[in-house]
Amino acid sequence: MSNGIGKEFMHMTKYQYLAASDQMKGIQQPPLELPYDRSKSIIALPKPEDIVVKNADVRRVIESRTSIRNYSKKPLTLEELSYLLWCTQDVKEVIPGTATYRNVPSAGARHSLETYLLINNITGLLPGVYRFLASKHKLMEVNLQPDIADKITEACLGQNIIKLCDVVFIWSAVAYRMKWRYGERGYRYMHLDAGHVCQNLYLSAESIDCGACAIAAFSDDNINDLLSLDGDEEFVIYLAAAGKK
Amino acid sequence: MSNGIGKEFMHMTKYQYLAASDQMKGIQQPPLELPYDRSKSIIALPKPEDIVVKNADVRRVIESRTSIRNYSKKPLTLEELSYLLWCTQDVKEVIPGTATYRNVPSAGARHSLETYLLINNITGLLPGVYRFLASKHKLMEVNLQPDIADKITEACLGQNIIKLCDVVFIWSAVAYRMKWRYGERGYRYMHLDAGHVCQNLYLSAESIDCGACAIAAFSDDNINDLLSLDGDEEFVIYLAAAGKK
Repeated sequence: MSNGIGKEFMHMTKYQYLAASDQMKGIQQPPLELPYDRSKSIIALPKPEDIVVKNADVRRVIESRTSIRNYSKKPLTLEELSYLLWCTQDVKEVIPGTATYRNVPSAGARHSLETYLLINNITGLLPGVYRFLASKHKLMEVNLQPDIADKITEACLGQNIIKLCDVVFIWSAVAYRMKWRYGERGYRYMHLDAGHVCQNLYLSAESIDCGACAIAAFSDDNINDLLSLDGDEEFVIYLAAAGKK
Repeated sequence: MSNGIGKEFMHMTKYQYLAASDQMKGIQQPPLELPYDRSKSIIALPKPEDIVVKNADVRRVIESRTSIRNYSKKPLTLEELSYLLWCTQDVKEVIPGTATYRNVPSAGARHSLETYLLINNITGLLPGVYRFLASKHKLMEVNLQPDIADKITEACLGQNIIKLCDVVFIWSAVAYRMKWRYGERGYRYMHLDAGHVCQNLYLSAESIDCGACAIAAFSDDNINDLLSLDGDEEFVIYLAAAGKK
């Protein structure tokens, strides 16, 4: 079976084994974000600069953070969701055609991640799956079928936290955005980047009396199918549940 | 060459291809931390609870964080270093023989990472490489040879930031601590975890007027050799420079 693939991956992504990247070959870089379907419903979020959150000391938040698996079932407000999205992926600056700078670091500012949300209990939003349009700070409806939370729960190996929390952040990697510069070693970086993002979710959730819980155990094929991702060019890399304590 | 190893790794670490883990087979779990050589110099760090840092708002810190590549050459104090170590890896609780809970999350509380430091400019510490003994909040001397900073710079493909910053955090993964439970899929999780840790370094550095810069471009073989890591059982997974702005 898969014995040894991890070691092999670490070995074959050493510099001495990397082929010239597409960037080195002079191939044009891919778009900075996925395109979106303008026929879908687009939902504006409260502007980050208008969101009021109380001062929360980094040190206290780092120490008190823990993975929270039980939530109060109080809904998150749209302002709170907007704040969490801002902390985890918002674009601070666009260098057109070149890079985005965001509220999280990414290897070479490649930012290969996209954010999907399973909304369970957010004031003012219908339950279902949405995609976050990071540079616009808006949401796009993806799938509002009533059984989608159950299906994503099942794809996450039956972990009930998925449907009992207020919102699930589902981060996908658009592999070529990273591979264009870094080749196969980029698969390491996509995971490192997803870790940065998830940690910001933990801390920003903690700062507004929410809890979060990272989830890396999922059926890749099932969750990719549910989000209509092909699983190679774009695939789910990490998830986290969040909700009011 | 390595074309396709990333995709192959993602594929072969799907649940359907994982072999039974050693935990499932009833094999005893490995120690929670690496042992240390008691004949080496052990250096006490200021106790976390005695370190005074000013209140720093999470939201402001997340927004103002950026990768800093130029430092002032002012030294970091031992208190500041102690604080950064506490934020990135300190052990909050030990469940003997079972798990540690730390100031960062880790898949299944496996915490497969170890922290080495290249000290360039910290008040009260000789330059060189040290290992952080997380559960004791102490440092152990590893290598104080005068050319070690140059050699690590070279292993990081000549990135001068390595020797011009105050301290480099070098995180290694002790693979079996993660693989014991998660098998080959654990290689994904080691990288996600390293991302959590690095993000806490970014934010905690920012909170004390330091900067940080993550580094994932390095010669695996060279840096592992310099730290006397075998490269399979334990290997460097991520680094970050930090220093006073």
